[in-house]
Amino acid sequence: MKIYRFKYESSIFYGVLEKDLLHVISGSIFRKFRIASKKIPIGDVWLLPPVLPSKIVAVGRNYRDHAKERGKPIPKEPLLFLKPSTAVIGPNDSINLPEMSKKVDYEGELALVIRKKAYKLNEDATVDDYILGYTCLNDVTARDLQDKDVQFTRAKSFDTFAAIGPCITTGIDPGALGVKTFLNGKLRQSGNTKNLIFPIPFLVRYISNIMTLLPGDVITTGTPAGVGAMNTGDRVDVQIEGIGTLSNTVT
Amino acid sequence: MKIYRFKYESSIFYGVLEKDLLHVISGSIFRKFRIASKKIPIGDVWLLPPVLPSKIVAVGRNYRDHAKERGKPIPKEPLLFLKPSTAVIGPNDSINLPEMSKKVDYEGELALVIRKKAYKLNEDATVDDYILGYTCLNDVTARDLQDKDVQFTRAKSFDTFAAIGPCITTGIDPGALGVKTFLNGKLRQSGNTKNLIFPIPFLVRYISNIMTLLPGDVITTGTPAGVGAMNTGDRVDVQIEGIGTLSNTVT
Repeated sequence: MKIYRFKYESSIFYGVLEKDLLHVISGSIFRKFRIASKKIPIGDVWLLPPVLPSKIVAVGRNYRDHAKERGKPIPKEPLLFLKPSTAVIGPNDSINLPEMSKKVDYEGELALVIRKKAYKLNEDATVDDYILGYTCLNDVTARDLQDKDVQFTRAKSFDTFAAIGPCITTGIDPGALGVKTFLNGKLRQSGNTKNLIFPIPFLVRYISNIMTLLPGDVITTGTPAGVGAMNTGDRVDVQIEGIGTLSNTVT
Repeated sequence: MKIYRFKYESSIFYGVLEKDLLHVISGSIFRKFRIASKKIPIGDVWLLPPVLPSKIVAVGRNYRDHAKERGKPIPKEPLLFLKPSTAVIGPNDSINLPEMSKKVDYEGELALVIRKKAYKLNEDATVDDYILGYTCLNDVTARDLQDKDVQFTRAKSFDTFAAIGPCITTGIDPGALGVKTFLNGKLRQSGNTKNLIFPIPFLVRYISNIMTLLPGDVITTGTPAGVGAMNTGDRVDVQIEGIGTLSNTVT
């Protein structure tokens, strides 16, 4: 099931896409919800970020090829950082290049959306019930500031630096999904989630032992090799098998 | 004015303290609010964190003496990191020592609470209007994990690692406030905000050029020298001139 969040006639809805129609959801996407009778053509709506997380927990260097291209060691434990909720934008929104940086990179990633509160899950806990579904995330990064600051916070936290969407796909196996990023239509990243150093169930359990994960929180799983700079006027597409394409332009 | 947030007879209120009475606030603390006629003795309430921030932006090594005791250079620009909202606890709540760490330190700090949205303030902007007031914050840190991880995120993000309170004090000048931390009644940190490397107006402007600051967001300004470990059963008091004392026990 593909769950979209969108604006239509100045109201905000969640809906499930079937063919080209969004079937409006009644109730919370984090509980058992109903499909209302209202249907809206997807061409008539403005897509929004599919979720507004209270926090985004990101995992650095979770693909060997990306750690290698950055000349950095492979972490022995997940390398975590946070992106603030104020960085979130949706599909079709613009990524703004900040004046403080001279080099802003795309990083296409598979992200997951938490469905219910996860707190100190133990080693053999099944995580499926805690995950609502999966989406694409562009973990935009001011590369020059990341290298200069040591701490990733500034480089990863500018407004518009967390593009999420286009939808949350439920009921898919995230274990072997192709993750591709295109810059102006040219393929730049091509990875597969089967190569994640720390796989999704491990990450959810591990992070839940540090901080409580709340419904709507996002964990983004890291980027494969091929990161590179974006410039004004560029279009970046993050495309993940079974989910779709997150497109943003750069201003 | 000292603004408290508290629970009384299973409802949550904001109130202004005068002598020992909390005068209940009607309306949002972020706008012009009224004092209702209801008064509640402070001894009859359970104090809550005075604010629930969407994000906590923290500043590392913002006192020379603390940078020195950690054997680290003084940053040329503010060293920023984020603490998640799930880490927030209030006065009298317990700080929980996580199993992952063998050394958890207190860090007493002056924190400020944002009153209205701040976005890209320019160099000569006056920040007073963007700040609601000031509070004490214990930036609890798993020191062993901080040293091991390089990124501060894990070490600073455990649940209960952001104790805030007891109140938000409005209308004070934060330029020269004594900041003291006591462990089991013994003085361990004694700093003064006049020694902040990056002062508050600079920090608000600087951070607002990275990420939008929202009403209720917290900026915590860094800790002076004297940090040290806490153990089960300890009590930690962060005391700031003109604000009061934030007390927490360790479990």
